[in-house]
Amino acid sequence: MKILRFQQNNKEVFGILKNEVVYEVVSNSQNLFYTRSCPELGKSYSLEDVKILPPIYPSKVVCVGLNYQDHAAELDMDLPDEPVLFLKPPTTVIGPADPIIYPPESRQVDYEAELAVIVGQNAHKISADDASNYIAGYTVLNDVTARDLQQKDGQWTRAKSFDTFCPLGPWMETDLDPANQRISMRVNGELKQNSNTRNMIFPVEELFSFISHIMTLNPGDVIATGTPPGVGQLQVGDVAEAAVEGVGTLRNLVKKSI
Amino acid sequence: MKILRFQQNNKEVFGILKNEVVYEVVSNSQNLFYTRSCPELGKSYSLEDVKILPPIYPSKVVCVGLNYQDHAAELDMDLPDEPVLFLKPPTTVIGPADPIIYPPESRQVDYEAELAVIVGQNAHKISADDASNYIAGYTVLNDVTARDLQQKDGQWTRAKSFDTFCPLGPWMETDLDPANQRISMRVNGELKQNSNTRNMIFPVEELFSFISHIMTLNPGDVIATGTPPGVGQLQVGDVAEAAVEGVGTLRNLVKKSI
Repeated sequence: MKILRFQQNNKEVFGILKNEVVYEVVSNSQNLFYTRSCPELGKSYSLEDVKILPPIYPSKVVCVGLNYQDHAAELDMDLPDEPVLFLKPPTTVIGPADPIIYPPESRQVDYEAELAVIVGQNAHKISADDASNYIAGYTVLNDVTARDLQQKDGQWTRAKSFDTFCPLGPWMETDLDPANQRISMRVNGELKQNSNTRNMIFPVEELFSFISHIMTLNPGDVIATGTPPGVGQLQVGDVAEAAVEGVGTLRNLVKKSI
Repeated sequence: MKILRFQQNNKEVFGILKNEVVYEVVSNSQNLFYTRSCPELGKSYSLEDVKILPPIYPSKVVCVGLNYQDHAAELDMDLPDEPVLFLKPPTTVIGPADPIIYPPESRQVDYEAELAVIVGQNAHKISADDASNYIAGYTVLNDVTARDLQQKDGQWTRAKSFDTFCPLGPWMETDLDPANQRISMRVNGELKQNSNTRNMIFPVEELFSFISHIMTLNPGDVIATGTPPGVGQLQVGDVAEAAVEGVGTLRNLVKKSI
């Protein structure tokens, strides 16, 4: 089931997407998001007529550094023995209708296509075997990064934390095998990243367990699971399309800061 | 004015502290927190009889690395030309009534006493000259850090992100000159850190401006302004007391993970 949030008469509502048609959820929508319960559906809209919002506003976005074997090979780096974590602030999150704003502080802004996990219920010290019970679904994330500032600072936070640097969406897919899906990034239609989630060093369930032993995960929190090889630059005017097979395509325009 | 949050009949309420007496705020308390408006006061309690909660639950905690000249001298490090940022997730925040939990993943958990800024209104690209208009007040923060994991990871996020690793409080002081206050840490009564906020490399207003140019700051967000020299280890059973002159003392017990 594909669950999305969209704007309707200046309200933010939940919807279900089926065959390019968005059905508005009229009851218990927030609960539906986490429980996958069967919703009561109301009016329907053509997908192209709705303004899609981020599927959720997370209280935290927990990201993982190097997590694709083919990316490690590309960078000639050893495989890590544990995930390396960083955070993006909630203020980075935008939906597919919003542009990525190129900040004046950077001269090198990069895309990074990622599979994102959306947490379904409070999770504290959960085993990898049990993790899937705590996952509401999956979406696509672009971990936009000011590479020059990342290198200058050593710490990655500033480079990853500019407003608009976490495109998320376009919707949440509740039924997905996260271990074997194509993942890609196109810039202006040209294929730049092209891998498969089976190349992850730490699979989704292990990441979930690892993180939940450090910090309690709350409903709606997002885990970004790392990016495959082929990372590169964005320019003002570019269209970045991150895609995960079985979920969909997250498309964002890059705009100049005003 | 000292504004705090406390538990009263299983509700979380705001209060004003005057001469060791807590006056419950009966109207418009959330608004008071940000506007410093004059509240209507209700019942009063002795300070020692109330369970104090964190003054706020921030949507983000933005922290600054090396920011005291005397700490840089202690570490024999050059002064940074720009602040280095990192984030602690909201799930780290505890109040003075809660214990710091020593995680089994670490063998070296350190204290770091810091002056914390509480954001009063949405702030996006604010100048240093204008920053004080966006600050609701000040409190004390202990940036608890698993030093061994910080060194292993390179990135500081995991080391700083364990649940309970951000004691905050005991209250917010709205009237404070952040540029000249004694800051200290005592462990079991013994003085470990002892400096003054005038030794900051980047003063509060410059930090605020720098961060607001990267990420929009929301009401209740917290900026941790760095720690002075004398950082050291905590052990299970220790009592950590971080203090800032003009604000108060934030006291937390260190407990074993169960």
